[in-house]
Amino acid sequence: MMDKRAYNFAAGPATLPEEVLRQAADEMLNWHGSGMSVMEMSHRGREFISIYEEAESLARELLAVPADMRILFMQGGGLGENAIVPMNLSQGGKVDVVVTGGWSKKSLKEAQRYCDAQQAASNEADGHTTLPAPSGWKLREGAAYVHVCSNETVHGIEMHELPDLKALGSNAPLVADISSHMTSRPVDWSRVGLAFGGAQKNIGPAGLTMVFVRDELIGRALPICPSAFDYKTVADNQSMYNTPPTYAIYIAGLVFNWLKRQGGIAEIERRNIEKAKLLYDYIDGSGFYVNRVAANCRSRMNVPFFLLDDRHNEAFLAGAKERGLLQLKGHKSLGGMRASIYNAMPLQGVQALVSYMREFASRHG
Amino acid sequence: MMDKRAYNFAAGPATLPEEVLRQAADEMLNWHGSGMSVMEMSHRGREFISIYEEAESLARELLAVPADMRILFMQGGGLGENAIVPMNLSQGGKVDVVVTGGWSKKSLKEAQRYCDAQQAASNEADGHTTLPAPSGWKLREGAAYVHVCSNETVHGIEMHELPDLKALGSNAPLVADISSHMTSRPVDWSRVGLAFGGAQKNIGPAGLTMVFVRDELIGRALPICPSAFDYKTVADNQSMYNTPPTYAIYIAGLVFNWLKRQGGIAEIERRNIEKAKLLYDYIDGSGFYVNRVAANCRSRMNVPFFLLDDRHNEAFLAGAKERGLLQLKGHKSLGGMRASIYNAMPLQGVQALVSYMREFASRHG
Repeated sequence: MMDKRAYNFAAGPATLPEEVLRQAADEMLNWHGSGMSVMEMSHRGREFISIYEEAESLARELLAVPADMRILFMQGGGLGENAIVPMNLSQGGKVDVVVTGGWSKKSLKEAQRYCDAQQAASNEADGHTTLPAPSGWKLREGAAYVHVCSNETVHGIEMHELPDLKALGSNAPLVADISSHMTSRPVDWSRVGLAFGGAQKNIGPAGLTMVFVRDELIGRALPICPSAFDYKTVADNQSMYNTPPTYAIYIAGLVFNWLKRQGGIAEIERRNIEKAKLLYDYIDGSGFYVNRVAANCRSRMNVPFFLLDDRHNEAFLAGAKERGLLQLKGHKSLGGMRASIYNAMPLQGVQALVSYMREFASRHG
Repeated sequence: MMDKRAYNFAAGPATLPEEVLRQAADEMLNWHGSGMSVMEMSHRGREFISIYEEAESLARELLAVPADMRILFMQGGGLGENAIVPMNLSQGGKVDVVVTGGWSKKSLKEAQRYCDAQQAASNEADGHTTLPAPSGWKLREGAAYVHVCSNETVHGIEMHELPDLKALGSNAPLVADISSHMTSRPVDWSRVGLAFGGAQKNIGPAGLTMVFVRDELIGRALPICPSAFDYKTVADNQSMYNTPPTYAIYIAGLVFNWLKRQGGIAEIERRNIEKAKLLYDYIDGSGFYVNRVAANCRSRMNVPFFLLDDRHNEAFLAGAKERGLLQLKGHKSLGGMRASIYNAMPLQGVQALVSYMREFASRHG
């Protein structure tokens, strides 16, 4: 039993700012004198509409989303979007997918149900530890879109820059799965046709998916696309064709407000770089732990690492838990450890982790 | 500004038990000494799994769900299921839909994207105020399923008994949209193949959909069914193929616990009958208000009513709000008023409403 809050390194659902949770608890029974919890409000009522509009406008402001992109609040998560994107955008034609880890691989497989989806590049041969150079991607003429996952949560690979498809000679819109770096860094929207992400990493509770999509890409859905997942239906109804996940949108708005108070995306990116550097530098110099991802594409959000002697894994996790360092176990497909250090993880949390790792290494090294 | 909680008659999202909200607020920062909010927990972690399993088992116990039915926690709401059900069950064949109001009409239209869906009966001619007698339903031989909406939230029509398709000579499984009466009364599962409902009426926050489905109906999805919405994928992964709406599932569990403390479904049904009777009896005898639904199919959950002189509508709503009686405005397609009196609406709330209606009528009558 812990009487205080732990440092929670879960990959998602993930740690949230304590200020946000306190405000949510304070407002739970009676939001702003409305006599209702946000959970109880009609999504069509004045109160919730104001919450929704604030969340949308903060997301637009923080991420500098251009005027010709719509922000949609949807359901189904990243795995849902793996089908929803090709149903909306592929028109049954060619789609090129860059495979950089488990997530983009799933996206490729799911897209193949709806269109001629092919692998444009893959880093599978090196165990998903490098980024295939964009100059080598096999991009097809006339593709409906090119899909990338710009942060692979399991393998800990991040594209620190989104690819410039025009510079690669392609006119296709870029679709980016930004689930696990959304709001952790700026987005160069000039390179993006559509971006999507589950909220449960940096934004709020699971069950909310954010989609950023150019107006010109809306209205192309296949006839078999469910109305509730047709971007046109969603956009035309301000994300309220079906009842949206209202409480999750409210929490997202609180998180966006918190982010703004921290100094916005530029400041949070600075902190994220600092936290990631602290952890990677320690791992690289430790001689006890290892991260195998190439230096130019290491994720600032998800840091998988391994004990060189994996017989110590259980002891490592048990000791971490005793110190209130939680959910460090690696993804089942990779084993080892993973520290997810999203926006809401304070520098102190990473310092506490490194300090424990150092102590553990000196005891068992 | 209200310094206390109002009586909230919203149709969904809707009022929740105050005890549940208090507990959620108390546990927001640190659930059971875990050092985490439920929102922050990995869906694969021990803590959340225990929350999930308790919610599932309480739902099964309270509703007496038989062993050969799976309970799935999904996303997309009732409108999502309008596509998800035919993608999973129709096999592109015949589907018969009984139209009793706005919701089943939408279900019919959406199903027609995936299969030969036809209207088996309709009460449109009388403005959705009666239930078409089952003996007159045009049920086709070999239909993949028959769809009913057993409570029409907008029109305030409820099937107090689910139809017995076998007695009508049909071997098709019954699909019931039970969104707005789920947990308000027992379900005769012997008549049901699949039932679904959005949580945001009687169970918890919007963004969670509950699906009850026979094992034998799982595994029939069309190839174009998204993996995240294929009942087989969902069932095989204990509703965790994609990240489930964890916080909504937690709240649902708290609501199920509350329901159990109230005495379970039998007791809540007794209270719901009492509340509905109080309101309908007053309306019928008032000479000032009217409900046009036939007595044998009036909804116990959603009570639409009209002021005979609709010039008083605005004054009625303003006065109600002053007394802390909220969200009584009728659905835009019908106008007038609607009082949704779900499980969590106490008898005192309905008494306060009737007392206000009486006072208003005597002032303006």
